[in-house]
Amino acid sequence: MSLDNRADNRPIGVFDSGIGGITVLRELVKAFPNENYIYLGDTARLPYGSKSPETVRKYSVQNMKYLVSRDVKAIVVACNTASTQVTESMFEGRPVYNVITPGADLAVKKTENKRIAVLGTRATIRAGSYTKKIKELMPEAQVFAQACPLFVPLAEEAWYEDPVTNIIAFRYLQNLKKAEVDTVVLGCTHYPLLKASIRKVFGNYVHLIDSGEAISQELAADFDRDHVKMATNVDKSYLVVALTDHSEQFENLSNELLCTVMTGQIDFETVSVI
Amino acid sequence: MSLDNRADNRPIGVFDSGIGGITVLRELVKAFPNENYIYLGDTARLPYGSKSPETVRKYSVQNMKYLVSRDVKAIVVACNTASTQVTESMFEGRPVYNVITPGADLAVKKTENKRIAVLGTRATIRAGSYTKKIKELMPEAQVFAQACPLFVPLAEEAWYEDPVTNIIAFRYLQNLKKAEVDTVVLGCTHYPLLKASIRKVFGNYVHLIDSGEAISQELAADFDRDHVKMATNVDKSYLVVALTDHSEQFENLSNELLCTVMTGQIDFETVSVI
Repeated sequence: MSLDNRADNRPIGVFDSGIGGITVLRELVKAFPNENYIYLGDTARLPYGSKSPETVRKYSVQNMKYLVSRDVKAIVVACNTASTQVTESMFEGRPVYNVITPGADLAVKKTENKRIAVLGTRATIRAGSYTKKIKELMPEAQVFAQACPLFVPLAEEAWYEDPVTNIIAFRYLQNLKKAEVDTVVLGCTHYPLLKASIRKVFGNYVHLIDSGEAISQELAADFDRDHVKMATNVDKSYLVVALTDHSEQFENLSNELLCTVMTGQIDFETVSVI
Repeated sequence: MSLDNRADNRPIGVFDSGIGGITVLRELVKAFPNENYIYLGDTARLPYGSKSPETVRKYSVQNMKYLVSRDVKAIVVACNTASTQVTESMFEGRPVYNVITPGADLAVKKTENKRIAVLGTRATIRAGSYTKKIKELMPEAQVFAQACPLFVPLAEEAWYEDPVTNIIAFRYLQNLKKAEVDTVVLGCTHYPLLKASIRKVFGNYVHLIDSGEAISQELAADFDRDHVKMATNVDKSYLVVALTDHSEQFENLSNELLCTVMTGQIDFETVSVI
């Protein structure tokens, strides 16, 4: 625990099954550069999108316990599939932020015509959590859900601005475009990497809801009302990236995605969470 | 153990991380319709392609122990990533067939110009097992290896004969085409599902080496020399598909792939191998 009443330099814990949550971490680091972070990537067991709810729940609890053992002050579930199975707002005394609630909140704030699309992995779409949450907040909303299974491997190939990605995006999204949605929830943490192709289908006037941005806004509100205390690091914040299986591809990709926003040290570790 | 000296009705055990090995199973069932089979799909921990060699080895041994506990007479490692980590030819008294050796053997038999391409996941290509094996059998061969990470999700989308798959195949394979290979090893068990697109790039005169066909030829040779005894089932052979995580998509896809070759009963089970 922090000895300073006004500050808490313990890290913010973030977990995902793999690399996708780095897009959430990137938005957090951009919004709160003085915080310390520990990012847990469960690379030994990725992806969660194809696993059963029970298995995803079990893995998520193991990941949260691991983060607690590293003395985090808050837990960010930076994985949409895991977020469907982690519904508690506190875990062992730490506030928990999943990506569903802030994403749904922001979508409802942004939409004008109340026609909202939700994109995600098969598991996220099947779970229907975004649709349920959006309908709770705005019962009159029309929600159109679409699974986009090829988006994750396309992001991992780094085919970000690429004709192949454009064609596949068009195939997955053309019916949503016809449905005249004005707001699109990027319901998988990999998808912000494909924003350019997704925007090509929908045009410039659609709101793309990025979980990382949404969660940062929620955390900012909690800092404001002192629900979580801010850190006081200046020029010495750190990031530990803990992976359950060593992956060079992961290290390269996360270095590439974080180098423009992270000024402090990034350390990589291989850990066991079981 | 079989009481009949001339026959052994115990099942042949086949395992893969997921659905891909079903293409191997399909070839086995086509070649040996009187045999019984147990197929283990480690769906809770798929895919293996992105995991470290140590983790893949650990999971493979757990899978083989599980198959032994189901009293199989032989073990087929129907997963290229696992095959790079299972090099033994016997496991607890049962002969083990990995997909690398038969695939390399068949490629060397088929090639005329001694220019061979190997396609696979990142992990299979990085491990270099096919290249090593082919070079062992034919030191003067030129081997061109190419990772094709999008092929697995394309096969899982069932975009088998599809312009998008054609474009992606062309992107991955155009340099191999220019290199004038005459034989192409489909070094991932999903890839036979994309044969049409792969053939479009290379043309009709290239030899596509399918692990399922290669392993069936090796098993046929072992039946001939009585290294493994055949079963005597007639019209009552069975197949058990045991999954470490329930998956409806898996059941549908494997039913679709097997319905044309399997006459007997297919039972699905969810099991734990740890």
